[in-house]
Amino acid sequence: AILAALPLDKPTADAKGESGPLAGKHILVTAGPTHEPIDPVRVIANRSSGKQGFAIARAAAAAGARVTLIAGPVSLPTPPGVGRIDVETAVQMRDAVMGALPADAAIMVAAVADWRVEVADSKLKKGKGPPALEWHANPDILAELGEHPDRPGLLVGFAAETNDVVTNAKGKLERKKADWIVANDVSGNVMGGDNNRIHLVSADGVDDWEDLPKSAVAQRLIEKIAESIA
Amino acid sequence: AILAALPLDKPTADAKGESGPLAGKHILVTAGPTHEPIDPVRVIANRSSGKQGFAIARAAAAAGARVTLIAGPVSLPTPPGVGRIDVETAVQMRDAVMGALPADAAIMVAAVADWRVEVADSKLKKGKGPPALEWHANPDILAELGEHPDRPGLLVGFAAETNDVVTNAKGKLERKKADWIVANDVSGNVMGGDNNRIHLVSADGVDDWEDLPKSAVAQRLIEKIAESIA
Repeated sequence: AILAALPLDKPTADAKGESGPLAGKHILVTAGPTHEPIDPVRVIANRSSGKQGFAIARAAAAAGARVTLIAGPVSLPTPPGVGRIDVETAVQMRDAVMGALPADAAIMVAAVADWRVEVADSKLKKGKGPPALEWHANPDILAELGEHPDRPGLLVGFAAETNDVVTNAKGKLERKKADWIVANDVSGNVMGGDNNRIHLVSADGVDDWEDLPKSAVAQRLIEKIAESIA
Repeated sequence: AILAALPLDKPTADAKGESGPLAGKHILVTAGPTHEPIDPVRVIANRSSGKQGFAIARAAAAAGARVTLIAGPVSLPTPPGVGRIDVETAVQMRDAVMGALPADAAIMVAAVADWRVEVADSKLKKGKGPPALEWHANPDILAELGEHPDRPGLLVGFAAETNDVVTNAKGKLERKKADWIVANDVSGNVMGGDNNRIHLVSADGVDDWEDLPKSAVAQRLIEKIAESIA
């Protein structure tokens, strides 16, 4: 369920809406995992902590942007000056993202489940054998934005990869019609940790970043976005 | 991974090991969900918050028991005087429980996944179609305790049910060779909330409790346990 939506028509008093390199810009950020219910008690989840997306939302607001943060189930405080919408599933996240357009830039950091399953109305009983899951493809939020009439001027995707990190990111850049892919090498099991190892992939090539705290990744990414859309 | 184990040979300074109705007793409590990995980033989880199990561990320690709390992935502080072992999966939880025996009473509150899946070494790619999950039955920790040579003197199971709450609990009591089943009616979606609606099922019959805060459920249950094993 969508749990909370702050009024988003105007910058809040906390946001530096009238100064900073992103003043007057609307930045859309997704963060966290999605939870796809199996039955009333079970879900398919992922290990995304939401920390990287929240750090980016914080940095964007600090740079003067009006920020809409669409968050999956995480227990993180809302950064100052950020408008937050809480969702649980990929479908809810897609609807919230499309509802928040138009935006000058969209940074899709959330680890959205590729698949959901048909939800059982009551708790599945062990004696019935393993769950017979009926799978459905989830909406591809990044690709939908890439083809949207209100496509954001700068469309940034994230890719958490364990193998062939840059090759996979280049493929994703083309398939999703994104401008940049922030490829995150999670082979060292950093999901949920405090650092990220980033390769920024765009039509211009690949920029390899050193291992950085998520706050520094956010700061560097927001600086690059400000240069790009200013 | 097992993240932390406090030394458990002796009551800590905080525990009231030498007074209280459970003085000199060792109480084993499990709490929280288990996470069963699908691949390096995805897990099958459940909505258990761990709050009820943690409240029971706290109440047992306050009643003078030496308490071993075996916790699935939750972000809750360890109650005072409680020895905590953190685990992620059902198999890890089983091993930790068996390793903590003998115990005077075991209260199995954790929402243990019935099934795990064969874990993929690298992140499953969307283009390959829905995950072809190979299911394996998880160990039944309560049933294993029920038949264990070191079976705790009082064996208490929990059952979160959406339908036929008491009927299902009576079946579980027999199948698992438990002494009591604390049946929790979650049809009102209370998992993760602060109250529980309990039916205590034993060979003596069914005791229907009013809707109570989890701390009050813990207190009442520990009082009954103290009467039973004192």
